[in-house]
Amino acid sequence: MANITILGAGLMGTAVAWPLVDNGHDVRLVGTHLDAAIIRSCLDRGFHPKLKRQLPDGIMPYYVEELPKALEGADLIVSGVNSLGVRWIAHTLGPLLWPGATVIAVTKGLEAGPDGSIRILPDLLHDELPAEIRDRVSLNAIGGPCIAGELAGRRHTTVVFTGKDMDIVARVRSLFANKYYHIWTSTDMIGVEVCAALKNAYTLAVGMATGMLDLEGGPDDAGASMHNVAAGLFGASAREMTRIVGLLGGGIENVPWLPGVGDQYVTCVGGRTIRMGRLLGAGLTYTEAVLQMAGETLEGVYIVQQLAQVLPEWERQGKIGRHELPLLRMLIRVVTEDAKVDVPFDRLFD
Amino acid sequence: MANITILGAGLMGTAVAWPLVDNGHDVRLVGTHLDAAIIRSCLDRGFHPKLKRQLPDGIMPYYVEELPKALEGADLIVSGVNSLGVRWIAHTLGPLLWPGATVIAVTKGLEAGPDGSIRILPDLLHDELPAEIRDRVSLNAIGGPCIAGELAGRRHTTVVFTGKDMDIVARVRSLFANKYYHIWTSTDMIGVEVCAALKNAYTLAVGMATGMLDLEGGPDDAGASMHNVAAGLFGASAREMTRIVGLLGGGIENVPWLPGVGDQYVTCVGGRTIRMGRLLGAGLTYTEAVLQMAGETLEGVYIVQQLAQVLPEWERQGKIGRHELPLLRMLIRVVTEDAKVDVPFDRLFD
Repeated sequence: MANITILGAGLMGTAVAWPLVDNGHDVRLVGTHLDAAIIRSCLDRGFHPKLKRQLPDGIMPYYVEELPKALEGADLIVSGVNSLGVRWIAHTLGPLLWPGATVIAVTKGLEAGPDGSIRILPDLLHDELPAEIRDRVSLNAIGGPCIAGELAGRRHTTVVFTGKDMDIVARVRSLFANKYYHIWTSTDMIGVEVCAALKNAYTLAVGMATGMLDLEGGPDDAGASMHNVAAGLFGASAREMTRIVGLLGGGIENVPWLPGVGDQYVTCVGGRTIRMGRLLGAGLTYTEAVLQMAGETLEGVYIVQQLAQVLPEWERQGKIGRHELPLLRMLIRVVTEDAKVDVPFDRLFD
Repeated sequence: MANITILGAGLMGTAVAWPLVDNGHDVRLVGTHLDAAIIRSCLDRGFHPKLKRQLPDGIMPYYVEELPKALEGADLIVSGVNSLGVRWIAHTLGPLLWPGATVIAVTKGLEAGPDGSIRILPDLLHDELPAEIRDRVSLNAIGGPCIAGELAGRRHTTVVFTGKDMDIVARVRSLFANKYYHIWTSTDMIGVEVCAALKNAYTLAVGMATGMLDLEGGPDDAGASMHNVAAGLFGASAREMTRIVGLLGGGIENVPWLPGVGDQYVTCVGGRTIRMGRLLGAGLTYTEAVLQMAGETLEGVYIVQQLAQVLPEWERQGKIGRHELPLLRMLIRVVTEDAKVDVPFDRLFD
């Protein structure tokens, strides 16, 4: 049995505690400075207010101030923070890490570099860690379709664990895998993580179909909806995802698999990203849509903003043609220029 | 302006008439022997009872007995029959065809050969046509996501036209393409048509997730559904589709595109296939599910039955391993042996 410390008590960070405690491990769940109310509820009532569930036995909640204590003897550290908090976690956790420590991140993201480069989340975390430790720890990540509340509900869930060292990834996998949490492993971190990030961006596009239908007043008299539009945008997403993953050196076989279309499928079922897409499709500008959604920051939007930075550089370097990735280009116009949605249907492919 | 004759007045055959008449062409819509009531309604009231729409001007309805007249001077023939009717159309239309005639099929399907071979619909049609004409006509097909009622509602729809001769495919495309019907072209008939057929089979699997949820009494107290299951099955579908398309010599790039995941996405939104999957997932045997669905014949089931015939041969020939395509193998057990649904979650990949 192992000791596992989770930093970040949000939905996904907390949900992965279920398979861990069901496998008999001890889990220390450490809230960030934003999670104090969650940790209080967990301590007082054993209830997680975001997941709306009682915590099972074997999960011990900690406030962020107790992080050093919660890390004592930890066999594995789970990074459960939002990808926007990667710098915070590097600076908070970094000084407490030890050589040989293993970290796995449940969140997804990528960031643009100045020269057209893209850094995936584990690389970002690496670069932000203190210099003396960053090359002496193992940084891994989870991709694939997973609604946190369903994992915590012990519903069958299929994901991919990825890291550079297959021995370590396999060891981490063995801590989590059980009869409902089904895990495959991959050393293609670029492929898995770029898919995981892109699906959030492209789900904004698929959501636009419902908004376009709203704009027409809903289904027509014969009941025609706009599923054909959504499906076309889903197909275009997979096509552009394939192009970008390949361009960044990842394996394109991740797209027609769990990290790509599997994860995008579940993201299209519901949630904030598809809702934002719907508002945009219905004619709101990005600025108006953000106001309507109470200022929530969306991963998908952040990804589009990052890609907006590298796209001109990719063109300059001759990596992509001027007319490639038409759907992404529209997303960029919508998010960075407050342009109205105008799906380039006739140019979606080639 | 061209004369186009559509044989088969069902949903899809009739729906493609909309872009044709909107482009100014004359359309003759010929019902099969099963469509007599539809043609009567079209003649009497200009109303298509299945599409629940008034026919626009420019569509002329014909009974099947008038087929020779309806074919006079036709520049293009559209085969709108269900893929189960391919022999009927070959025998009915075949004797009336002339050298140089162009046919495009809106339906999808494939059939097992005795030696592990798979024939796509245009090849089946070819082989069933009279010997003296079969090599003197052009047989083409349509793939990609399209709900007929939405195309007839002039919703944006993105599809792929495929045929052996790109000049002919491009000419056919030019008859249909307009501001809402967006068409790409491909000479990879195997890739497009195998995807189009497989998505019906694999949508049965995705539908099982909802049935498995029904079996559990619906979402749990915290609202956990089974979208993770559906997404895992969607990802497995894309993975197995890729394997089969490649094995049959088609381009695997069709999978993360319109003919593959795009079409499967729209098929998962609703309809008979996903409903049948739900019944199976909820614990009904295939035989019980068919009874519940009033004996309707489903394309997806037919495709599974065809694949059940070729799979042992593929193994014997060393084309696939004994444990490959685990999801398809489960579908085969369910459909051909009345086995209960038992998703092989731990063996879904590799």
